[in-house]
Amino acid sequence: MNVAVIGATGYTGLEVVRLLMQHPELNVTAITSDSQAGAMLTEVYPHLQGLVHEPLQRAEAMELALKADLAFVALPSGLSTGLVPELLGAGLKVIDLAGDHRLSQSDYEQWYQKTPPSAEVLAQAVYGLPEYYADQIATARLIANPGCYPTATLLSLLPLVQQGLIDPDTLIVDAKSGVSGAGKAVSPSSHFVEVNENFKAYKVGVHQHIPEIEGVLSQHCGEKVTLSFTTHLVPMTRGILTTSYAKLTSDVSTEELLALYQETYRDQPFVRIREKGNMPATKDVSTSNFCDIGLRVDPRTKRVTVIGVIDNLIKGAAGQAIQNANLLCGLPQTTGLRTAPVYF
Amino acid sequence: MNVAVIGATGYTGLEVVRLLMQHPELNVTAITSDSQAGAMLTEVYPHLQGLVHEPLQRAEAMELALKADLAFVALPSGLSTGLVPELLGAGLKVIDLAGDHRLSQSDYEQWYQKTPPSAEVLAQAVYGLPEYYADQIATARLIANPGCYPTATLLSLLPLVQQGLIDPDTLIVDAKSGVSGAGKAVSPSSHFVEVNENFKAYKVGVHQHIPEIEGVLSQHCGEKVTLSFTTHLVPMTRGILTTSYAKLTSDVSTEELLALYQETYRDQPFVRIREKGNMPATKDVSTSNFCDIGLRVDPRTKRVTVIGVIDNLIKGAAGQAIQNANLLCGLPQTTGLRTAPVYF
Amino acid sequence: MNVAVIGATGYTGLEVVRLLMQHPELNVTAITSDSQAGAMLTEVYPHLQGLVHEPLQRAEAMELALKADLAFVALPSGLSTGLVPELLGAGLKVIDLAGDHRLSQSDYEQWYQKTPPSAEVLAQAVYGLPEYYADQIATARLIANPGCYPTATLLSLLPLVQQGLIDPDTLIVDAKSGVSGAGKAVSPSSHFVEVNENFKAYKVGVHQHIPEIEGVLSQHCGEKVTLSFTTHLVPMTRGILTTSYAKLTSDVSTEELLALYQETYRDQPFVRIREKGNMPATKDVSTSNFCDIGLRVDPRTKRVTVIGVIDNLIKGAAGQAIQNANLLCGLPQTTGLRTAPVYF
Amino acid sequence: MNVAVIGATGYTGLEVVRLLMQHPELNVTAITSDSQAGAMLTEVYPHLQGLVHEPLQRAEAMELALKADLAFVALPSGLSTGLVPELLGAGLKVIDLAGDHRLSQSDYEQWYQKTPPSAEVLAQAVYGLPEYYADQIATARLIANPGCYPTATLLSLLPLVQQGLIDPDTLIVDAKSGVSGAGKAVSPSSHFVEVNENFKAYKVGVHQHIPEIEGVLSQHCGEKVTLSFTTHLVPMTRGILTTSYAKLTSDVSTEELLALYQETYRDQPFVRIREKGNMPATKDVSTSNFCDIGLRVDPRTKRVTVIGVIDNLIKGAAGQAIQNANLLCGLPQTTGLRTAPVYF
Repeated sequence: MNVAVIGATGYTGLEVVRLLMQHPELNVTAITSDSQAGAMLTEVYPHLQGLVHEPLQRAEAMELALKADLAFVALPSGLSTGLVPELLGAGLKVIDLAGDHRLSQSDYEQWYQKTPPSAEVLAQAVYGLPEYYADQIATARLIANPGCYPTATLLSLLPLVQQGLIDPDTLIVDAKSGVSGAGKAVSPSSHFVEVNENFKAYKVGVHQHIPEIEGVLSQHCGEKVTLSFTTHLVPMTRGILTTSYAKLTSDVSTEELLALYQETYRDQPFVRIREKGNMPATKDVSTSNFCDIGLRVDPRTKRVTVIGVIDNLIKGAAGQAIQNANLLCGLPQTTGLRTAPVYF
Repeated sequence: MNVAVIGATGYTGLEVVRLLMQHPELNVTAITSDSQAGAMLTEVYPHLQGLVHEPLQRAEAMELALKADLAFVALPSGLSTGLVPELLGAGLKVIDLAGDHRLSQSDYEQWYQKTPPSAEVLAQAVYGLPEYYADQIATARLIANPGCYPTATLLSLLPLVQQGLIDPDTLIVDAKSGVSGAGKAVSPSSHFVEVNENFKAYKVGVHQHIPEIEGVLSQHCGEKVTLSFTTHLVPMTRGILTTSYAKLTSDVSTEELLALYQETYRDQPFVRIREKGNMPATKDVSTSNFCDIGLRVDPRTKRVTVIGVIDNLIKGAAGQAIQNANLLCGLPQTTGLRTAPVYF
Repeated sequence: MNVAVIGATGYTGLEVVRLLMQHPELNVTAITSDSQAGAMLTEVYPHLQGLVHEPLQRAEAMELALKADLAFVALPSGLSTGLVPELLGAGLKVIDLAGDHRLSQSDYEQWYQKTPPSAEVLAQAVYGLPEYYADQIATARLIANPGCYPTATLLSLLPLVQQGLIDPDTLIVDAKSGVSGAGKAVSPSSHFVEVNENFKAYKVGVHQHIPEIEGVLSQHCGEKVTLSFTTHLVPMTRGILTTSYAKLTSDVSTEELLALYQETYRDQPFVRIREKGNMPATKDVSTSNFCDIGLRVDPRTKRVTVIGVIDNLIKGAAGQAIQNANLLCGLPQTTGLRTAPVYF
Repeated sequence: MNVAVIGATGYTGLEVVRLLMQHPELNVTAITSDSQAGAMLTEVYPHLQGLVHEPLQRAEAMELALKADLAFVALPSGLSTGLVPELLGAGLKVIDLAGDHRLSQSDYEQWYQKTPPSAEVLAQAVYGLPEYYADQIATARLIANPGCYPTATLLSLLPLVQQGLIDPDTLIVDAKSGVSGAGKAVSPSSHFVEVNENFKAYKVGVHQHIPEIEGVLSQHCGEKVTLSFTTHLVPMTRGILTTSYAKLTSDVSTEELLALYQETYRDQPFVRIREKGNMPATKDVSTSNFCDIGLRVDPRTKRVTVIGVIDNLIKGAAGQAIQNANLLCGLPQTTGLRTAPVYF
């Protein structure tokens, strides 16, 4: 299948391009960058010298439709809202890596403070978390690829929420991310000297991924979930770790919960559950599409602590997008994604 | 006043030595290291070439008593239990930077799994958090210098707990530390390649600082506090950031809470409160004795999020020890500690 | 072809294992670690959970010969000298990643200060730099896989030396490496706090890779080359960059030299030459088998400066070993190695 | 004495402000930033909360002359050329941390590609390397504070050059710097993701510090020195390390050269010479005004390798500026600068 990558010069678009290079079934026939149309991707990223031969072009839907059947849209939030209807109209299937198609119109307006997509387009969007929505993804025309924080958080919490094992009113998620999550744009807050040897919180309680997490949890919980969610910046390039806390509704043990997680994710090739006493680190999944999860029941507080890790650019963005593309194409989910984490 | 530094080759002992170099009233007359007695500190730490002239000696209480009136004990947990009674017996005042004199005997046994100090010695120990115990510190013979995590956590939470503004059953503290907190001993977990580009949790729910925090909070709360506490390792050298969450017991605003904190710490030279919308980062206090605090009331969840930062080796260890020594000597708390954070 | 990896728990052995996972023709049938025989590799490296199923075994030549036709030996220097004759005797072909079979007996004794291999074994060893010794490699029984620094240095300098374009007496190589090059052993010098925010030289003028570089250069130069070589440690995990300086023997331009390099490496799939004005960075080759080279003629000093970069664990070790294995097996050199650098 | 800091929001200006806080004789009475006049420095740098009370003002010479006797000018290259004559005209003494007053007019034009200062102003400028020009500095009205790379390089090489111990035609300096040297301006090349886990060369052979180094060396050598000089970027915040290579003109030993260095710098409080076999690392001088130097004679190549390290923002900029101010004011050079390196 021929695919286009829209916004190939951003970190997530770049990662989609790289992963597609090793994909046996998806051929990249177009890569776009409106700001650098006409240039070669290797001018921006010399590490790709000799590996990418397509010139960057502008994202014109009709033209792309002549070359590709599927488009990965890796644009900043707000921009995909404008382009996606054109791509759909031109007959392309779309996997949108931005946040534009993940929320209701009102939530999007409130949390992103931008104009939302139309109700018609939103109605077509399927939430692209393959571990929970594989069937809908397989037949979708528009996939809203999940955010990086929601991916780690939801995979960590859904088994508990689905089984009613925690009190949703007590949910707190303390999340930490490497700097690549903030994207390629330069700003004082991405300056090396500001980030290096520094750890800080940002967007405390107001991160735009909050309604995305709450929406999916609520759907699986049967009641409205409202959680505390704090994001922090780690002085490293890649990786997200979420530490989630909640009161247990019954007297379960660490072993029982681990068994539940093992069972829930038994057939999911990219979720790995740790043994008791063992918690995952971001390095354990670096450069891979895995999500590793560990947990512990604290008998002192009757709370469970769940720790989930992903590579924010892969399982949290580009890798998951390709996993979704595989489902869309009837391929095994692991096609082109079977690489071991690099112990970097 | 003449002082001795016991255990000068560890990171905290080293930092005590460095800070004392710039102290106008405290003279270092002895530095010890049992493992490297006879050597010069500059053989271990060439950055001190030309700056430290005392040879390292063994920690013999009677000998130290001839040279010094006050001893900073910067030994690993378990070792100060043996030495402190001898130092006290020889007439020295003691500031113990280890955890040995901060807990009840039973808590110490349970959480440190070592033999606790005697009841007689423990009865003399004053908890050395100057912002709350200055009067007792001033007349103490033995000061239990607080742990790094407890310092950041307690300064962040005590104003709320004292005023009954939060439900103590809902307290969750998610803590993050740089690697220097783990000390100078080599181990696979301190190897650069293991730590770099990695973020991980450790000792989830079982960190030995938990009873120290709970003990002080309980004392100020009037009831037994039990909290969830998770520690994480950040790929950086210095700094602790704690993110604390709790349900508010009444309808207070961010502004009201900030005003309370401003008032509580008005006369405390090392606690700085951030304005609304502003959260501190570890770099903001790096190499200084400050603790910076920011907070936010979340109207969606009725929880408050409090963020506190310190330099773990200074306000979390060596700097606080000197602040305590100042109180002990009737000096202004800021003596020798008035250095601005280095924007590293 | 079935292969064994000897010493799979070190960083280079681990990287051989990882790269072989994605190799279509080489099957790993045995992995060894004398110190951890019986354990699973995933106990040491949890990031491999679910990916490696062979238990670690002891390195017994006869037993390995039943399972494999080729052995990658990733042991510390000195240890492969003992094992390699046994492996050869048992009928295995061997690719030795240690330094033991790269030098003459006298050079090895002098620079490694260990007992060298026998003359009989050394006589069989072929130096495994595929860009210059492909024919000999293809028919070898024992391949001495080049050191990390020599790989970057030799690929940077051989075109100049072969053409007599530089005065070999003026050669200076200033080399910098990430910390993974020092291996997995814990030591004060690999402690995160010691390495982080630090840059230092080590083994100035006495690094054991000096005779390896000089030997190969001398062979291609026609006279004995003696060079200044300084190694430095960079606070990062992966990557080597060498900056080489030499007086030019004639009046050539940057363009002419770049054309020579382009021509020299035209058919070499893993050497990429930069355009004028463009110098490679270590990130440009990270996690890949590429060596990128840039250069500049300085008209002020009549010197040429050549900059070469590799991933020390891949082109500098494990990747090059697999490239050699491909040659040995009659496969295209790029088999299993066609992965783009990760923009980490 | 009252002093003004011009350009207080850049990294070097900020560091001048910080160091002056702990200076007993120099009072900061004005700090300027044309772009942020009217704001408080703490709005840009929250780590200074409670420590800096002067508002930022515009740099108006006449107004500054009412408040201060001495101005530290920490502006980007090109801007001090315009302001310095006004400051001098208003009666202020000036220490210029930019490169504008360090070169001849023609060299400045060629290497900085900007309009040079007038001959009249340049004639007043004294090169502010206290170890070699203390007498001239003490009576100067305008001090050209040395560049960061020249400081480390010149202190490393001048003893050899003065004694004619090396062949100046063979001089090669391979220099490495932390990222703070590139300043506070945001750019793709200072983005954390670009710098982290990366090592690269930049401005190969064309760095603007080359003529500054060559000029001073030539002056002490008695003939024109032309050297190869390559700068590299290290993924860390602070620190410069220079590795210098040159052919020796006679048969001297490492011990003899170390003795020469010891003798040369015997009375210099900020230069420390390492013992044989010991090389300095950037961490050894971090946050201090020290320059540490080690060296080795290589009997194989008849070259000497000299390694020098400084904190680029202190001995390479702000600290040296204050050292110069001390000389100008008749104070001991160490006034306000006697802080030990922080083992960060």
